[in-house]
Amino acid sequence: MGPHPAVAAIRLAVRRVLHDVLTDVQRTSENAPSPLPPPAHPPHPAHLPHGQPPQPLVLVACSGGADSMALASALAFEAPKLGIRAGGITVDHGLQPGSDLRAAEVVVRLTALGLDPVESVTVQVGRSGGPEAAARDARYAALDAAAERHAAAAVLLGHTRDDQAETVLLGLARGSGIRSLSGMAATSGVAGRYRRPFLHIDRQTARKACMVQSLPVWDDPHNADPAYTRSRLRHEGLPALEKALGKGVVEALARTAQLSRDDADALDTWAAEAEATVRDAAGLLECAKLYALPPAVRRRIVRRAVIEAGAPAGSLFARHIEEVDRLITGWRGQGAINLPGKVVAQRQGGRLVIRQG
Amino acid sequence: MGPHPAVAAIRLAVRRVLHDVLTDVQRTSENAPSPLPPPAHPPHPAHLPHGQPPQPLVLVACSGGADSMALASALAFEAPKLGIRAGGITVDHGLQPGSDLRAAEVVVRLTALGLDPVESVTVQVGRSGGPEAAARDARYAALDAAAERHAAAAVLLGHTRDDQAETVLLGLARGSGIRSLSGMAATSGVAGRYRRPFLHIDRQTARKACMVQSLPVWDDPHNADPAYTRSRLRHEGLPALEKALGKGVVEALARTAQLSRDDADALDTWAAEAEATVRDAAGLLECAKLYALPPAVRRRIVRRAVIEAGAPAGSLFARHIEEVDRLITGWRGQGAINLPGKVVAQRQGGRLVIRQG
Repeated sequence: MGPHPAVAAIRLAVRRVLHDVLTDVQRTSENAPSPLPPPAHPPHPAHLPHGQPPQPLVLVACSGGADSMALASALAFEAPKLGIRAGGITVDHGLQPGSDLRAAEVVVRLTALGLDPVESVTVQVGRSGGPEAAARDARYAALDAAAERHAAAAVLLGHTRDDQAETVLLGLARGSGIRSLSGMAATSGVAGRYRRPFLHIDRQTARKACMVQSLPVWDDPHNADPAYTRSRLRHEGLPALEKALGKGVVEALARTAQLSRDDADALDTWAAEAEATVRDAAGLLECAKLYALPPAVRRRIVRRAVIEAGAPAGSLFARHIEEVDRLITGWRGQGAINLPGKVVAQRQGGRLVIRQG
Repeated sequence: MGPHPAVAAIRLAVRRVLHDVLTDVQRTSENAPSPLPPPAHPPHPAHLPHGQPPQPLVLVACSGGADSMALASALAFEAPKLGIRAGGITVDHGLQPGSDLRAAEVVVRLTALGLDPVESVTVQVGRSGGPEAAARDARYAALDAAAERHAAAAVLLGHTRDDQAETVLLGLARGSGIRSLSGMAATSGVAGRYRRPFLHIDRQTARKACMVQSLPVWDDPHNADPAYTRSRLRHEGLPALEKALGKGVVEALARTAQLSRDDADALDTWAAEAEATVRDAAGLLECAKLYALPPAVRRRIVRRAVIEAGAPAGSLFARHIEEVDRLITGWRGQGAINLPGKVVAQRQGGRLVIRQG
């Protein structure tokens, strides 16, 4: 008898990602100078002779919650079959009393799954950008450091399709265009370090997989705290939206993320190529040439130029770009436009002059 | 003392659109053969000599609800100042007892505003596509006919920013990409006949403008009927989303609509241009050339080809296109793919063959 469907689903998702990781590792090692030719058929991992390259290590980032515990269990099951070492990291954010004990417990559970190495890392959460952003920044910094320390080939993250749907809605609330609708990438970080095998798996499946494998999971009280936007979205916003629009909303949002990401990538490519054609000999943007481009491409070029001049991307909103765009499309002698990061945009002699003032 | 801010806002929105309509009318009449040269300064509309072209007519589509009554009042105020005749149409869908009396009442109110001509049109609502779609189809058919009958230069529609936000969420629920996120266009229909001056005006402003002008308005009970998806969205989904994400959600959704529309237009243009470069001498799509395109462009070309072969656009979902796309990106000898409208897609000799089976 095969495993429970939920367990089969999470294992398949992890197996696919591990295959991709192996392909990338092999590509990298082929490009690196190698003292020995690679074997045509790699030996079984348990019987590696001396002098073979070490097995690649894949880490799972695990909070002890259902999503990442399910991920850890699937990694522990699949990695050995592919000659991959599986390890785990849990991050203690130090935000709640007893978080150190919680982290120690997660270490015990990951070790019990057969992961090695397993580490708990304590971080200092700052205040920059609000509590959620600060915790996220501290967490990724710690995971980056752990990945470097262990020379890990990848770090798996347990974000599910439900997380993705929430991320799309959070992006929607910014109203800043399709890039912010594109959610989390399946692969991100330095050299594609972070992988999210569960972006097509729903939270319920992850929870079920833990249950049928008798894995104890921890429910982070933050996830139910209405002080957090994501938590309000999860417990009130999305359910109300599902009630109004039907059960397919989460899947539709996740699909929107993928389609938006591809669209945003294509338009960014176009803008990067078009940009070279609209600059004059001095490197200034020519308004007449910008005017002839589709608005979607023109505004991306403007946005790139404003960021290049020093405006922080996170503070730059669609209305800023629209205002600069009107120097091109609605020119009636308007004055200089002040933008975030003390960047100033103005039109001079048919050129767009954008610089830090 | 100027008008109330809400009244000023709706009038400004209508004035801008009427200016655009006039520009279009003048452009059209310049292109048409004219027996007389156009006057350098058009005479005051009240003193048009014989032989002058008739004043253009702009109709407002009015249900008697706050949005379209506000729109009618602003049209009645602004049109004469621009030498435009203002008329009104109300559509009796015959779906509720007494709807004919209701329509007659709207005719009285529009006439009282000084609109002329004013007409009530009775339509037969079919069943195709569900009750909301059927009512919409019948309504637009009647408005099209009325516009032709009166040779109207434009028909104004009272859709507000809130309606736009709802439309974006309805599109999001389809999960079929950024075109479905682009909401309603400011200008649509044959020769840009339909104009939506209130897409940046919120429902509250329209309601306020009616109140301060002492215009009685009618609340369509359908708008509060939870049997309708849009009604559930309006009364439950959107408020819950606002509670979770903050008050700016409606504005963010409306902005998303505009940005998505521009992006979708640009990508459609790209796909149309790229399509010519990926067909062989026999006009078949070459998989190797398609493979080299960005996924966003490739999938649009595939979609166009499938629709061209006879698949109804409305039944074609992202998952259909993804399956055809895998013939290009994940070729492992898979068989023919059945698509809506009895269209069949298969790969033969490195070509995509898409035809009605």
